[in-house]
Amino acid sequence: MPRFKLIVEYDGTPYRGWQRQAEGRTVQAALEEAIAAFAGGAPRTRAAGRTDAGVHASGQVVHVDLPGAWRADTVRDAANAFLRRQGDLIAVVSAEAVDDSFDARISATLRRYRYRILNRRSPPALERTRVWHVPRPLDAGAMHEAAQGLLGRHDFTTFRASQCQANSPVRTLDRLDVERDGEVIEVRTRARSFLHHQVRSMVGSLVQVGLGRWSAGDLSDALHARDRARCGQLAPAAGLTLIGVEY
Amino acid sequence: MPRFKLIVEYDGTPYRGWQRQAEGRTVQAALEEAIAAFAGGAPRTRAAGRTDAGVHASGQVVHVDLPGAWRADTVRDAANAFLRRQGDLIAVVSAEAVDDSFDARISATLRRYRYRILNRRSPPALERTRVWHVPRPLDAGAMHEAAQGLLGRHDFTTFRASQCQANSPVRTLDRLDVERDGEVIEVRTRARSFLHHQVRSMVGSLVQVGLGRWSAGDLSDALHARDRARCGQLAPAAGLTLIGVEY
Repeated sequence: MPRFKLIVEYDGTPYRGWQRQAEGRTVQAALEEAIAAFAGGAPRTRAAGRTDAGVHASGQVVHVDLPGAWRADTVRDAANAFLRRQGDLIAVVSAEAVDDSFDARISATLRRYRYRILNRRSPPALERTRVWHVPRPLDAGAMHEAAQGLLGRHDFTTFRASQCQANSPVRTLDRLDVERDGEVIEVRTRARSFLHHQVRSMVGSLVQVGLGRWSAGDLSDALHARDRARCGQLAPAAGLTLIGVEY
Repeated sequence: MPRFKLIVEYDGTPYRGWQRQAEGRTVQAALEEAIAAFAGGAPRTRAAGRTDAGVHASGQVVHVDLPGAWRADTVRDAANAFLRRQGDLIAVVSAEAVDDSFDARISATLRRYRYRILNRRSPPALERTRVWHVPRPLDAGAMHEAAQGLLGRHDFTTFRASQCQANSPVRTLDRLDVERDGEVIEVRTRARSFLHHQVRSMVGSLVQVGLGRWSAGDLSDALHARDRARCGQLAPAAGLTLIGVEY
């Protein structure tokens, strides 16, 4: 069966995350339903990032094997037509025929996430499902400086969900940049792979630094403690977007 | 009664526009309800821009007279608390005490709008209520060049809604820039005031240029014809945001 690589965008707000579950609608179930509607069979997709409930994607990558011969553009357009008919907040941005050896999860060499904080007194109206609203002033410069202490290869147990299923808590963080643009603070991060809740755990801890409650040394101590109890607040899902995957 | 100037942000999607109407929820009615909830009385607001149904604002300016003495920050926070309780997609970004001579509509010297087009084959998932989706490729450079022919003082009858209530169709357009950033084409415009549907009418006509159906000369001819029938398609409300007002 020919394999396709899809780039997928979605608004995570109404979904219980990417991964198919016994109960509740997921992005994976909705996408597979749309693909089955035109291609038949019971297509199984696999994604580069198993995003949590409420997390968004502008550049999720998925692979799927389809019975029969399909033009890649037809796969994209037919999936979008059925996603729209289903009322789903999901779009297939592009589709491309790939070799059987391509695996959206295993072949990925780099994942990029963006986290957005709205840092102003008044709540968000336009971006309410897309940001973490932090009303107290944050020092983005201090957050950026402290963040650099997390770069490189570490045991990230402190920033890992208790239910994380990865074999090892060791990851290599390539980038963790914090930048303010007016009322919005944007965190951009990049690694070959992340642990479950790692980005949101790191952002929640960086906010402690931004509020002046933690120093850069406190953040570094929390990392080296390898103790989940030392993590800051878990940042809400709404602020997080998977923006790209490289192979 | 002390007068306050409010900067207001809203997601226009669920509202029948700014202006209070006999039927259907409007931004004005929701905001006045929230203000009345803490200040009492029957507060009447006036806005710089009477945005249409589905049009958004990040920098709408409103004035309101309140019975009694209020700190400006309390007005902002109390309005936001009641807006949230009402489930409205409206936020008061700031409040400021102003002189009685200040009128949000009449004192405005400059209004700024942004219009966003998503120019790609696949439909929007994340920005579906915030952009006009145009799947066929647009030449943003040609749009920008043609747009410059609309600058200055003109009779804008061609780009004016038939129900427009302004006394004169003459306006002075200061800026109309079209710029592409990847899949997004952004139109930014600025004038002392606009006619009803003027921005959406200009954008719809510029898209004719972007598609190669109209030349810059055709756009200019349409302007000088002073004939509503010569206008291009009215661009959808969702792409439009009132981003700022100056005094």
